[in-house]
Amino acid sequence: MKEFDLVENIKSRYGLTAVGDDCAVLPNGPENELLMTADLLIEGIDFELGWTTPRLIGHKALAVSLSDIAAMGGTPRWALLSLGIPQSLWTSEFIDEFYGGWNALASTYSVELVGGDISRSPDKFLVDSVVGGDVPKGRAIMRSGARPDDVIFVTGVLGGAAAGLKMLLNEGQNTACDSRPAGLLVLRQLQPVPQLVIGNLLQEQGLATAMIDLSDGLSSDLQHLIDASDVGAEIDLDALPIHRELSNGFDVDTCRDLALNGGEDFELLFTCAPNHEPEVAQLGCKRIGTIKAGENIIVSTAGALIEPRGFRHF
Amino acid sequence: MKEFDLVENIKSRYGLTAVGDDCAVLPNGPENELLMTADLLIEGIDFELGWTTPRLIGHKALAVSLSDIAAMGGTPRWALLSLGIPQSLWTSEFIDEFYGGWNALASTYSVELVGGDISRSPDKFLVDSVVGGDVPKGRAIMRSGARPDDVIFVTGVLGGAAAGLKMLLNEGQNTACDSRPAGLLVLRQLQPVPQLVIGNLLQEQGLATAMIDLSDGLSSDLQHLIDASDVGAEIDLDALPIHRELSNGFDVDTCRDLALNGGEDFELLFTCAPNHEPEVAQLGCKRIGTIKAGENIIVSTAGALIEPRGFRHF
Repeated sequence: MKEFDLVENIKSRYGLTAVGDDCAVLPNGPENELLMTADLLIEGIDFELGWTTPRLIGHKALAVSLSDIAAMGGTPRWALLSLGIPQSLWTSEFIDEFYGGWNALASTYSVELVGGDISRSPDKFLVDSVVGGDVPKGRAIMRSGARPDDVIFVTGVLGGAAAGLKMLLNEGQNTACDSRPAGLLVLRQLQPVPQLVIGNLLQEQGLATAMIDLSDGLSSDLQHLIDASDVGAEIDLDALPIHRELSNGFDVDTCRDLALNGGEDFELLFTCAPNHEPEVAQLGCKRIGTIKAGENIIVSTAGALIEPRGFRHF
Repeated sequence: MKEFDLVENIKSRYGLTAVGDDCAVLPNGPENELLMTADLLIEGIDFELGWTTPRLIGHKALAVSLSDIAAMGGTPRWALLSLGIPQSLWTSEFIDEFYGGWNALASTYSVELVGGDISRSPDKFLVDSVVGGDVPKGRAIMRSGARPDDVIFVTGVLGGAAAGLKMLLNEGQNTACDSRPAGLLVLRQLQPVPQLVIGNLLQEQGLATAMIDLSDGLSSDLQHLIDASDVGAEIDLDALPIHRELSNGFDVDTCRDLALNGGEDFELLFTCAPNHEPEVAQLGCKRIGTIKAGENIIVSTAGALIEPRGFRHF
């Protein structure tokens, strides 16, 4: 059973309707809606202590949740942090450094830590990052709003985080951060930047019809978006904006594979109505394809089927 | 460094004011406030798979968070669930059973599952339970409202959950559930009942000046309450309502120790103004002591210092 199958199974069995977008959208007074998201990061699965630093783990734990708020066009407000801490890390400076990294990013966006939980963990460090935000009522950008002929955009370059992960897996240490250009790719993996400014701007100006953040990888995340919208998509593989450092060390096919299927770039993938295309292009976003009527599949402009090959936990 | 020291350290370093009660209290429109709580339960620390069932883990994960909402006098509304699942449990009926237990309790209180996260875990099953609730504006019952001469109450009997844990630790299996009276104590540990009805009633009728749920143990939780309120407390040890099954198998000293320092009974500990004592007693709550001016310490009616000896993770 795949992760998405489990979620679908649970949703259908228990009649859940609010589960499935980047954030849950909940009532919050007359003017706003509350956005809620949770992201669980576990040592040995989502990161290795040998690759990264406690400060970068703190940064990333918050960044991935802020990215979910960005994908709804919202503004983050407050956070809960639940930490599972092995005995060996308790007396060290680890926790202080972790909070330092978390707090530096939180301060940038005025996110307040309001609660959470701390538990001992048998051997692995783990963090569940929960962020609450808001969006004006009825303005949250869902995955389900894409319509045929809408234009598909991404906010930035692709494949860098997955290339950085490849380097970390090969090298088994974080010294790669010290040598450029490898360091740029490794930081793309370890220190993602949530696209809150552009996400909020797209919402305020009513430019995006559907949006999702790129966490699993373009092919999988676009599949989520077209499934939710009940449409198809055509992608121009030559138009994918590939991280410029990928050409140092990866061949053309690998670059395209990383851009298409590599996860954790935390750029935004969104659609806009054709008449808004010029305004969106002026914001620096890159057009990569078009929404199509019909089956919920992704094809290339050459007509080849593009299957979702992004990250899955199971 | 103890768990509470870490939290205090982080609060003071980063100027956090909202952290520290059973729930964070956040703005939520003109009439209500939002209550938020998170509880992290990790296999090998908070439970063992050999002791309990997936269904009971699902129940308890939600129950402990509902207890936090109860301790503020609030009403639970929705929840996020983050699950770390080892490969070995993925294909089994484990997850289905876990959700079944979670959902049975959630349905009782009309709590809707709105989101969360699922991650693979290296070897241990873990769950972070996040619940959102609400309370009329300005009516949340904080830990900090106890005043000298207030009367201290608990909503029910003490020591049962800790006695049940002792039995599980000795027996190493859950067959104890089948034999009464041991089964009653084991279920007190594995299937706690959140005191939402009485918590809500105390809030609506304005009867409680301060409240906390009994998760770490009476001595520690009362210490949290008097620290937050900047008062002292005097406890009548002979008045502690001890779970009636404890006398089968535990001597008098052990019974008192379990009632005073044993955790996870998930009853509510609260204070009320002296003039409200008769109304509170009519609700079936048990008077156990009095709030005192002066040092933030707990003493017995005989004048002996009672130190906090409840559960600590570190």
